[in-house]
Amino acid sequence: MSISFQITHVDGRARAGLLRTPHGEVQTPAFMPVGTQATVKAVPPRDLEAAGAQIILANTYHLYLRPGDDLIARRGGLHCFMGWPHPILTDSGGFQVFSLSAMRKIDDDGVTFKSHLDGSVHRFTPEKAISIQENLGADIIMCLDECPPPTGHDYNRIALARTHAWAARCQQAHRRADQALFGIVQGGIFPDLREQSARFLTALDFPGYAIGGLAIGESKADMFQVITWMDDLLPSDKPRYLMGVGEPTDLIRAVARGVDMADCVLPTRLARHGAAFTRDGRINMRNRIYAEDDRPIDPECDCYACRHFSRAYIRHLLQAGEILGMYLMSVHNIAFLISLMREVRAAIIEGRFQAFAERWLARYEAASVQHAAHGAS
Amino acid sequence: MSISFQITHVDGRARAGLLRTPHGEVQTPAFMPVGTQATVKAVPPRDLEAAGAQIILANTYHLYLRPGDDLIARRGGLHCFMGWPHPILTDSGGFQVFSLSAMRKIDDDGVTFKSHLDGSVHRFTPEKAISIQENLGADIIMCLDECPPPTGHDYNRIALARTHAWAARCQQAHRRADQALFGIVQGGIFPDLREQSARFLTALDFPGYAIGGLAIGESKADMFQVITWMDDLLPSDKPRYLMGVGEPTDLIRAVARGVDMADCVLPTRLARHGAAFTRDGRINMRNRIYAEDDRPIDPECDCYACRHFSRAYIRHLLQAGEILGMYLMSVHNIAFLISLMREVRAAIIEGRFQAFAERWLARYEAASVQHAAHGAS
Repeated sequence: MSISFQITHVDGRARAGLLRTPHGEVQTPAFMPVGTQATVKAVPPRDLEAAGAQIILANTYHLYLRPGDDLIARRGGLHCFMGWPHPILTDSGGFQVFSLSAMRKIDDDGVTFKSHLDGSVHRFTPEKAISIQENLGADIIMCLDECPPPTGHDYNRIALARTHAWAARCQQAHRRADQALFGIVQGGIFPDLREQSARFLTALDFPGYAIGGLAIGESKADMFQVITWMDDLLPSDKPRYLMGVGEPTDLIRAVARGVDMADCVLPTRLARHGAAFTRDGRINMRNRIYAEDDRPIDPECDCYACRHFSRAYIRHLLQAGEILGMYLMSVHNIAFLISLMREVRAAIIEGRFQAFAERWLARYEAASVQHAAHGAS
Repeated sequence: MSISFQITHVDGRARAGLLRTPHGEVQTPAFMPVGTQATVKAVPPRDLEAAGAQIILANTYHLYLRPGDDLIARRGGLHCFMGWPHPILTDSGGFQVFSLSAMRKIDDDGVTFKSHLDGSVHRFTPEKAISIQENLGADIIMCLDECPPPTGHDYNRIALARTHAWAARCQQAHRRADQALFGIVQGGIFPDLREQSARFLTALDFPGYAIGGLAIGESKADMFQVITWMDDLLPSDKPRYLMGVGEPTDLIRAVARGVDMADCVLPTRLARHGAAFTRDGRINMRNRIYAEDDRPIDPECDCYACRHFSRAYIRHLLQAGEILGMYLMSVHNIAFLISLMREVRAAIIEGRFQAFAERWLARYEAASVQHAAHGAS
């Protein structure tokens, strides 16, 4: 087995665990920064390490198109290519084909699409998605899946059948013993489809399961309902990876429902647009109320940006369009989520997760309401 | 006296010295990275320190317009604002008024100009340039000067008279005892004007002298001719600062003619456009010949970029438009020039500067010719 997973503490539905991979250990619950094009945008590996990141994600769709998975394989794989010797997870490319490519045509065998870069035509099959991910060489790789909109039972049923057939083919095609292949549960917001998907994939006995098809337009209530179903349906001894979730309050509520891992571009994307996470809610660092604010972004944060620079300086950098502004904001937002997950984990281990979560959410959400009232977010 | 300067070694016309400022020592000859808007573009202070930068430059024109020198003064000055506790030099804003502003109208009292940011109208006088620089609080500040094109004796003569009158007014206006005010020698490419300028400013007894009005379109031969005149005309015990020069070969040839300090946006501007300095000439990192090149940018460089990342990876980042690519390139180019000046200084101290310079220039320039022939630069 390429990875092992051990749950060390349970508190309510929340779990603290240890995921061992060929490139090192990941303490769960864990937030995984996204390095779409083999770089977490604007953040050098050194700063990811300093922030406490233990695992990052990279995107198969992007790296297949540029610079090419063959080229990366010849460089010794993704870890070596991007200077990140720690665990990496790659997605299957499915989600990007459905959200980014200029054209796509799906059939039972695979999906044909046009590159968003140059319009060239490409085809992903389950076998191709595995072959690319074997070239990239991540510790954890994903099955190719179809990602339909979350509503519409009929289409979700058809798409799910395809996702299941593809999962079996991915498992069949996968050769590298030093990689763990995760299945992806789909089924939109429909309990019967989600149950069917969990049962089908569990029968294939994957070393881990992703919860896919969420955070793409459904309501928060629907999202957490599905996550709760998953907690009941998925084997409790395997890691659960919630795809595409990175809002701090969502992370806490997902962990409260048995999620072990999550990824999202949110912290770095928000950062580049000037929004920063703080323990007192999300703030818009471009707001003029920060022009002469000598405090760090978050006075309780100990990241490089917060230890050395003021809101006034960072606001100036953002207003002036300086790269250093996007860098400092990105470093902070990543460090914020990772430090949050570290606090969450400590609370689970000490059996005080529910109290922690309630206090944390109350402070963050009260402040967010206040910021909105004062036009600061 | 706010600064002291001591020449410790002379080798031919080249000098090694020690410049002491309120914020620390600078070993000369020194290259000063430019932090136009209170940040060396894309490079955090930590990386400047790691590269061995001892002094950086910031631009009065830009910081006056945004975020404003008053705001920076209220934050405790530039060192505090930008998290750089080491020496800083600010220019007078004159050069930017003449090169960047949307409109300018010059008279004997000062210059009125429109902001390149929003078209608002502003006025710099010698007194205003000093007041702004006192607010910014750099260790070394500059006299307001007029920067005419290098040719045209008549206009250079008129502009020089203004520059001299302004230098005297700047000296008169300057109050802060913890700042050293440098004079700027002008006079285009004309020996009589350069001599007149050197004599006039030397009579005012500034603690240091900048050589202005070069690297703005004149030939290299003219530029080095002027620098050689300056070596003969300026007092040998005061630091000489060559403004706006940062090409490695120019730096070596300037030091060979008695220059102690130089600044330029070149390393960071080239970096953002994909060009890297190496001991074997300048290379265009976007060139496809580097797509599978596993060597660092410069195998003899020990900067963060060269210790951890390959040309193949950095080329990928540049092609993909990733900020990390611009960051790594900028860190490298800055580190390259600073390390070059460190080698230059060691050669001067050991009395082998001429041999060092000849060997270094021969290798760099031979390789540059070869790159050009192979389309790699």
